[in-house]
Amino acid sequence: MERHFTEELKELRERLLYMASVAEGMIHQSINALVERKEDLTKKVFEDEDKINMMHIEVDDRCLKLIALHQPVAQDLRFIISAIKICSDLERIGDQTVNIAQNTIELLKLPQLKPLIDIPRMADITKTMVKGAIDAFVKGDVDLARGVILKDDEVDNLKDQIFRELLTYMISDPASIQRALALILVARNLERISDHATNIAEDVIYMIVGKDIRHHIEERKPS
Amino acid sequence: MERHFTEELKELRERLLYMASVAEGMIHQSINALVERKEDLTKKVFEDEDKINMMHIEVDDRCLKLIALHQPVAQDLRFIISAIKICSDLERIGDQTVNIAQNTIELLKLPQLKPLIDIPRMADITKTMVKGAIDAFVKGDVDLARGVILKDDEVDNLKDQIFRELLTYMISDPASIQRALALILVARNLERISDHATNIAEDVIYMIVGKDIRHHIEERKPS
Repeated sequence: MERHFTEELKELRERLLYMASVAEGMIHQSINALVERKEDLTKKVFEDEDKINMMHIEVDDRCLKLIALHQPVAQDLRFIISAIKICSDLERIGDQTVNIAQNTIELLKLPQLKPLIDIPRMADITKTMVKGAIDAFVKGDVDLARGVILKDDEVDNLKDQIFRELLTYMISDPASIQRALALILVARNLERISDHATNIAEDVIYMIVGKDIRHHIEERKPS
Repeated sequence: MERHFTEELKELRERLLYMASVAEGMIHQSINALVERKEDLTKKVFEDEDKINMMHIEVDDRCLKLIALHQPVAQDLRFIISAIKICSDLERIGDQTVNIAQNTIELLKLPQLKPLIDIPRMADITKTMVKGAIDAFVKGDVDLARGVILKDDEVDNLKDQIFRELLTYMISDPASIQRALALILVARNLERISDHATNIAEDVIYMIVGKDIRHHIEERKPS
């Protein structure tokens, strides 16, 4: 019975790792379609959305059964509750990449605005955050989780800077408004992904040290 | 023991009801500050953010203890897991109203753009959705929850319409760009609130009928 439970926890961990790798791939694909200006590349994002949605249901179900059948307490219970929350964040990261893909499709109907400013860099950081947050979960690594939370400020600053630059474009050239606006929304989607990765990292710390750090970090402010 | 557990579930229900009423109040306050053009009115939103954040931690903690101590199964377990998710959505609704308040403060530094188009109406619908979703949770009312989910499309359409109108302003009058952009972001915050209310309604249906309807409603598409 105990061995069985340990096996099932291991499987749960692997499913979340896989789900996270799908989410990272979706961030990459959606931004790559924008950078390469190839609408075709967005297709994979929409396909993966179905996949990640199905995994969301499956993982949730798995967690509920684990609780009902094994009635875990303490660390194990916190692990499973964290898995439920993390799974929901991963699914929402997928939603954000779908929004990016939709904005990309709109953008590709118009001539290119200019280089994409710091959007690809912002995407790279958010990918690293998602990966870091899930690695922290799997390894039970508090320091790694803390590192992810610190990166959230970097993403917020980058987003503010992108906003300012795009606003300047819009004001100096009204013909750029629609495209600049679409890029602002993409930056905002990336910011949301960074928020979700931060949520995951916070859940990981909670899971490990059993202490709720959410809403306790004074440096973080909503943006 | 059983009576005690029932009492604790009742208390949990009441805490979530209260938390939802705070979230509704935050939507109202943040939009009211924008409509009345009074920065003072945003203060209450920032105060309530602290309150809702503390409740998030408290409710989460309450749920974990309930599971660990009473090892509930079936309907009761689903109820508690739903409470954890709903609580997280309510806290994120609070975050969105803080974003609205911050955008409002920026907007109030500039002369008024024009009437606020359909933003107050959009806010009214989202408030109704949050209230409906929590009522559905407390009463275990599937029909009420379904009604909330249907309203999400109405909000999405309204947001698209607001986007189009504001884009027209920006193109015809570049001096309006900054203000129109801030209003677009407010509309987007309201859309996110509507998404959270929808998540709550879906969790309620899952809790009651034990069937996962998330990702199964074909009419719904991300926006």
